Amino acid sequence: MKSGFFITVEGGEGAGKSSAIQTMIEVAAQRGFEIISTREPGGIPIAEQIRGIVLDRANTAMDARTEALLYAAARRQHLAEKVIPALEAGKVVICDRFIDSSLAYQGHARGLGINEVFSINRFAVGDWMPQLTIFMDVLPEVGLARIEADLSREVNRLDLESLVFHRKVREGYLLVAERFPDRIVRIDAGQELEAVLQKITEVLNQKLPGRV
Amino acid sequence: MKSGFFITVEGGEGAGKSSAIQTMIEVAAQRGFEIISTREPGGIPIAEQIRGIVLDRANTAMDARTEALLYAAARRQHLAEKVIPALEAGKVVICDRFIDSSLAYQGHARGLGINEVFSINRFAVGDWMPQLTIFMDVLPEVGLARIEADLSREVNRLDLESLVFHRKVREGYLLVAERFPDRIVRIDAGQELEAVLQKITEVLNQKLPGRV
Ligand SMILES: Nc1ncnc2c1ncn2[C@@H]1O[C@H](COP(=O)(O)OP(=O)(O)O)[C@@H](O)[C@H]1O
Ligand SMILES: Nc1ncnc2c1ncn2[C@@H]1O[C@H](COP(=O)(O)OP(=O)(O)O)[C@@H](O)[C@H]1O
Ligand SMILES: [Mg+2]
Ligand SMILES: [Mg+2]
Repeated sequence: MKSGFFITVEGGEGAGKSSAIQTMIEVAAQRGFEIISTREPGGIPIAEQIRGIVLDRANTAMDARTEALLYAAARRQHLAEKVIPALEAGKVVICDRFIDSSLAYQGHARGLGINEVFSINRFAVGDWMPQLTIFMDVLPEVGLARIEADLSREVNRLDLESLVFHRKVREGYLLVAERFPDRIVRIDAGQELEAVLQKITEVLNQKLPGRV
Repeated sequence: MKSGFFITVEGGEGAGKSSAIQTMIEVAAQRGFEIISTREPGGIPIAEQIRGIVLDRANTAMDARTEALLYAAARRQHLAEKVIPALEAGKVVICDRFIDSSLAYQGHARGLGINEVFSINRFAVGDWMPQLTIFMDVLPEVGLARIEADLSREVNRLDLESLVFHRKVREGYLLVAERFPDRIVRIDAGQELEAVLQKITEVLNQKLPGRV
């Protein structure tokens, strides 16, 4: 990696990831960085095609390992075509969900095993692990209630999963955060929004490298 | 695995895999087994969709790791929907190319590393490794010449690769065969066809389990 800085934002549905990213963009811009904010599959045609297979509701026979491999494949392509070039150009890249989503969802909540899902994602990511991960931690009932209150939001397949599943996702994130303490910063995202964004501003100001 | 028996057939283009499989089917049938012969993606819709992305010539931007993950994903789905059910029903499954093709092509010839490609494929395959692998070993110039002589055969992307590449593929297979000596039987596929098929008959008669 040249002078860029790779940040990912993680957490359950309604945790406040999108809200956090808006603030992160402002903080990084004030520090003089060029920023791109993205999420998989991010308009990369090959990654979009792959994601299309995963999300196709007709594909009810999809095996959990197939799904995990497809997420890893879409991740690789998005990384190769969009993230790596931006980092090599010295930009701050902020990605809404990345490897830890697979570890928490497929690895822990779906029961494939965090280690096993990490192995395929490590292959996908190669040397391009995030340098900072903001984990927006909130009780699933709180996150889901926020989403239900937000009528503009489209409901996707995961929003329909049970609370039990979302509790396992959170448990997965907590395990992953314990495992990568140097990279992952846990934010108490159950607080009111202003306090959350204040905390994120502090963390980012502390972790961002000096002006490029 | 219940009473089924999982065989894969490997080797470069024109090595004689398809020819060998015809003989293997006859030998296994004489021994009283029910047999299915298959190859990835094998008519499994999800696996076909995945393979379609890999083979789409418009996808020139495809990263080598993305491609390897997609092959592993298609492999998993074909295994889950077609191979595992047949093995669980006690059948002999003969699969034309499987994990070792990825190790030889993506791992060695394309330079991703045999160990790295093995890790994602081990995730895809889980406990369902082949019990016997017939490696049809032939000099690439011989195999390619056979294909050129066979006008009925459709030319695919790999047939167009250079001889240098096919030499690396063979080198990859030899490394893989060294690494899994218990599972992989190397056949000298440069001999005349009758001798090759005779040898395959012997190997199979020796390795197939007792009557089911
Ligand atoms: N800390 C918070 N307190 C109250 N509401 C919040 C908080 N964080 C986010 N929200 C609201 O919850 C909804 C989901 O937030 P969003 O940032 O889209 O979450 P995510 O991207 O993690 O799914 C939005 O309506 C947002 O305004
Ligand atoms: N040992 C052999 N000697 C001569 N020709 C062969 C031999 N094995 C196969 N062939 C011929 O070579 C061509 C390719 O064989 P095939 O079994 O389709 O190879 P593969 O499936 O490995 O690509 C066919 O025309 C086949 O009849
Ligand atoms: Mg969001
Ligand atoms: Mg063939």
